[in-house]
Amino acid sequence: MTSNDQNPAACPLPLTEYPHVLMAHGGGGKLMSQLIERLFMPAFSNPLLAQQHDGAVFQVDGTRLAFTTDSYVVDPLFFPGGDIGTLAVNGTVNDLAMCGARPLYLSAGFIIEEGLEMATLQRVAGSMQMAARQAQVQLVTGDTKVVDRGKGDKLFINTAGIGRVEDDVQVGPEQIGSGDAILISGDVGRHGLTIMAQRESLAFETTIESDCASVAAPVLDLVRSGVTVHCLRDLTRGGLASALVELAVQSAKEMIVEECRIAVVDEVRGACEILGLDPLYVANEGCFVAFVPQSDVDLALSVLRHHPVSHAAERIGTVGSGERGRVILRSAIGGQRVVDRLSGEQLPRIC
Amino acid sequence: MTSNDQNPAACPLPLTEYPHVLMAHGGGGKLMSQLIERLFMPAFSNPLLAQQHDGAVFQVDGTRLAFTTDSYVVDPLFFPGGDIGTLAVNGTVNDLAMCGARPLYLSAGFIIEEGLEMATLQRVAGSMQMAARQAQVQLVTGDTKVVDRGKGDKLFINTAGIGRVEDDVQVGPEQIGSGDAILISGDVGRHGLTIMAQRESLAFETTIESDCASVAAPVLDLVRSGVTVHCLRDLTRGGLASALVELAVQSAKEMIVEECRIAVVDEVRGACEILGLDPLYVANEGCFVAFVPQSDVDLALSVLRHHPVSHAAERIGTVGSGERGRVILRSAIGGQRVVDRLSGEQLPRIC
Repeated sequence: MTSNDQNPAACPLPLTEYPHVLMAHGGGGKLMSQLIERLFMPAFSNPLLAQQHDGAVFQVDGTRLAFTTDSYVVDPLFFPGGDIGTLAVNGTVNDLAMCGARPLYLSAGFIIEEGLEMATLQRVAGSMQMAARQAQVQLVTGDTKVVDRGKGDKLFINTAGIGRVEDDVQVGPEQIGSGDAILISGDVGRHGLTIMAQRESLAFETTIESDCASVAAPVLDLVRSGVTVHCLRDLTRGGLASALVELAVQSAKEMIVEECRIAVVDEVRGACEILGLDPLYVANEGCFVAFVPQSDVDLALSVLRHHPVSHAAERIGTVGSGERGRVILRSAIGGQRVVDRLSGEQLPRIC
Repeated sequence: MTSNDQNPAACPLPLTEYPHVLMAHGGGGKLMSQLIERLFMPAFSNPLLAQQHDGAVFQVDGTRLAFTTDSYVVDPLFFPGGDIGTLAVNGTVNDLAMCGARPLYLSAGFIIEEGLEMATLQRVAGSMQMAARQAQVQLVTGDTKVVDRGKGDKLFINTAGIGRVEDDVQVGPEQIGSGDAILISGDVGRHGLTIMAQRESLAFETTIESDCASVAAPVLDLVRSGVTVHCLRDLTRGGLASALVELAVQSAKEMIVEECRIAVVDEVRGACEILGLDPLYVANEGCFVAFVPQSDVDLALSVLRHHPVSHAAERIGTVGSGERGRVILRSAIGGQRVVDRLSGEQLPRIC
């Protein structure tokens, strides 16, 4: 049987199934996973990319480095709790932290639509510098492109980041073990809801603010405290649910999560009800999960709760003994359901 | 006198002089320099950024690294001699090479306009992988964003790159010395003219092809051959003239260049005449200048000519003894003129 004879339903190429890119291909759900797995991974095939982590980890002359990138296309540019600049710095800083790395240096590439107010650009640059100072990273190299009016949308920013991986750190989906505790750093859904509320001009009684922040400090404290951290993942596009499903599949483990342990602030819960959204799928920009051995739970939680950004850290679940790559959500009243990946687009352009 | 009293003509802020971003702010000329010097540099102020080189060079645990980024917004996506994918790889590889670094790892961030043909994306990914193989770098981490139809332009790609700086290499504008020879790796103007011809649907008798290629191999050979390389710069946006003016200003040196030594192929010269362009200001994507001591010229040229991409390397000028940051172009008939920066936009979105 040649490769052309393979059942197209079993492994459909995006080319045949979707001849054009849809918004959902960037949404953090099923279609984005397919695009990555079926188009980018085969094209760029190499062992480092195959790690499928938030960044690549490699050695240069014996020094372990982490390297990551994200482009930011958030709409609107400014929102309660941050803007595209704070997002571009903290998002990439957090991806480095998720590799167990101390973030060091960032690059910044600006794609500006002709006609953008110079004051807007200046304000965003100021936000980036402030976020960089807070996260103790330096913006050391950059690039500016301008595209014609109507060929962009005000401002897109790409940042890439380099971090130094702590020597004894081995984090990644393959490190997740049966019996590991699943910890979360705080409540979920604030960033996505904030953007949605801004975009839809919804007036909620209380203003929700994005949780956009660096989580590098608690993560570094965690890995240096002696806690054996098996895996870290920030809960961006697709939210907590998508991150857990992805890790369950990558690690081929079953994860059992208690719904009542997942904090959702009242304003977010209320807004989600109005909008018909599940907060578990809503994006965060300052929240992560950590997988640690049962024996390290107390120390890990006490380290995390010491930092303002993760003061509400909680244990939300456990990695089961089964080999099935799935996530089980147990509700407060005893029911349980399998958590699925987001199938379509939920909140486009939230980061 | 407070800072508000300063003569606005002497040091105008982009905010007051240009309340909105113009196409020329991304064109590689005067306005782009102003935007960088007056908005980004003050905002992100740090010594590494102040190097104003093609990338930042720093040490992590004693290992010297180069780090650089570029966003690619070329229009059209495909052109004779390459596409946005080959450009995105080679452009960043070349920026690393200009730091005297061996390119190692690249990141790739895709901003896709909703509706892009999946086949286009697949073709571009294939080009990137082929270019990466040729340049001996690995694409190890990436990101995909999709923006609504009409809010982007098919495909923008950002790449960032990490390279290992050779131990004894010290390249940069500050290393340029009086008496240094100015070498060029080949003929100029092919990339910019190729894009312009495609965009304007001009039919020239001979098809011009972009020079898009990695120059890492000749550069590494040069630095390893024992040649003392003082500075390297690739001749992208703004072409040879803009690169030399920038280096003259940064090094506070006078550069004297012989016009007759600068190769321009007949098709490029002819097309430039039709379009009213000066080939010295037209972008290249596989061409660079190297500053080396007088005593190393023969060795340097022989090393460069050994590589196909720089087989036509030539000496085009000399760094003068004066302290004035300017470039003097001597014509074949004995006249001379001061070369100025490009003042407006010449070829937008050529990379």
